[in-house]
Amino acid sequence: MANSPSGDSVLDRLVRILDAFDAGTPSLTVSALARRADVPRASAYRLVEELLRHGLLAREGGEVRLGLRLWELANRASSTLDLRRVAMPFMEDVNQVVRQNTQLAVLHDDEVLVLERLSRPGSVANQAYVAGRMPVHLTSMGLALLAFSPAPALEGYLERHGERMRSAHPDLRRELAHIRRTGYASLEGFIDTDTTGVSVPVLDRRGHALAVLAVVVPRGSNLLRPAVMALRTAARGISRGLGEIPPD
Amino acid sequence: MANSPSGDSVLDRLVRILDAFDAGTPSLTVSALARRADVPRASAYRLVEELLRHGLLAREGGEVRLGLRLWELANRASSTLDLRRVAMPFMEDVNQVVRQNTQLAVLHDDEVLVLERLSRPGSVANQAYVAGRMPVHLTSMGLALLAFSPAPALEGYLERHGERMRSAHPDLRRELAHIRRTGYASLEGFIDTDTTGVSVPVLDRRGHALAVLAVVVPRGSNLLRPAVMALRTAARGISRGLGEIPPD
Repeated sequence: MANSPSGDSVLDRLVRILDAFDAGTPSLTVSALARRADVPRASAYRLVEELLRHGLLAREGGEVRLGLRLWELANRASSTLDLRRVAMPFMEDVNQVVRQNTQLAVLHDDEVLVLERLSRPGSVANQAYVAGRMPVHLTSMGLALLAFSPAPALEGYLERHGERMRSAHPDLRRELAHIRRTGYASLEGFIDTDTTGVSVPVLDRRGHALAVLAVVVPRGSNLLRPAVMALRTAARGISRGLGEIPPD
Repeated sequence: MANSPSGDSVLDRLVRILDAFDAGTPSLTVSALARRADVPRASAYRLVEELLRHGLLAREGGEVRLGLRLWELANRASSTLDLRRVAMPFMEDVNQVVRQNTQLAVLHDDEVLVLERLSRPGSVANQAYVAGRMPVHLTSMGLALLAFSPAPALEGYLERHGERMRSAHPDLRRELAHIRRTGYASLEGFIDTDTTGVSVPVLDRRGHALAVLAVVVPRGSNLLRPAVMALRTAARGISRGLGEIPPD
């Protein structure tokens, strides 16, 4: 609908415009936005005007940024809202007990999407940001989500990303079986090598991961085993809060 | 751009479609969505198809709901992200110490927009939801935000909503002056009359409210004064964390 001569629709352009902003680039001039979003300048100016009028973008100095109205529309009926609401008190418990950054994530479009993160002063470094994406094959979150995916989803993922996966995990099948058996995944930090991520799935009644709960601990720390216990306890509480009783 | 015969643009329709979902109506059939969004059925079907393709909507059974991609785009560069990130540890502290629901809100489009809420098992009832809106004149959050607004913003608000405001607060100017002097607003719950809301502004360096931090306590509770102290302490911490030193 409403296609431009180049064949992309208003919606295609809108998505590219919203996608041009991220945590490192929260605001842009309209020209820079047009370049980043690959939208002709004149169209970008018209579209930005309309987005400003609807509050989906907001002016900030000579630049524009995402508007609060967009945040409101996207958040108030989000499918993540229930999960986040149920998970938050349990995440706070883990955060209090383990005293390290605690995060909640899901598998989305073959990547790990971070839904929530509670940080602590003095926690070790951590590259996860709310609404940020992380690679499946380089995070304990990704491995735990994959290990507890339904078989067709796992096979589909491996078909699309098998090579990358196997280069990081030559013995992947055995590794995933181990994660399923022990109920958690741990992996040394891939950006900050001084840290280890520990992840436990939040299971549904069929034993598949709805989400993953993770903490990042200092590498070689004796916190790892206690953190697993805290995460497993909290993850079961979240499952129960969602009305799912995970199998033993 | 791309106007339909009725004169509304694709973007107008898109916003009405996203606006049709809320916490009480997280999913809809396409027909119901078309009705609620006031978009002709055929257009609605086409637009929904395109939104599904972009992940801005997702299928759920025979209905559609907001997609995780929309959540991701709206959250990762949101102007609320910094405020939320800085505020969260302080909100957890208040939540631990006061042991009642704790929330963070801003003034947006003449309403109170709730950015974050931490709840506690056993807390009193509370009508605030994340990304939900509440009326300014019936909440302690609204009164605190208004009392610490820049003068032109306050006058503008009163011009637009003076009548409604004065019916609930006949002596509003004196009430706002009192809030400015004491540094907090308290108000009995407007839906649940057994509760009292207590709100303290998060101030910028000019003494204007960037946001408001609030708890809901049982009505008549002796928690009110201690809650104010906890909120004021936490609100100063948030200001400092944002690089704003509020005036004394």
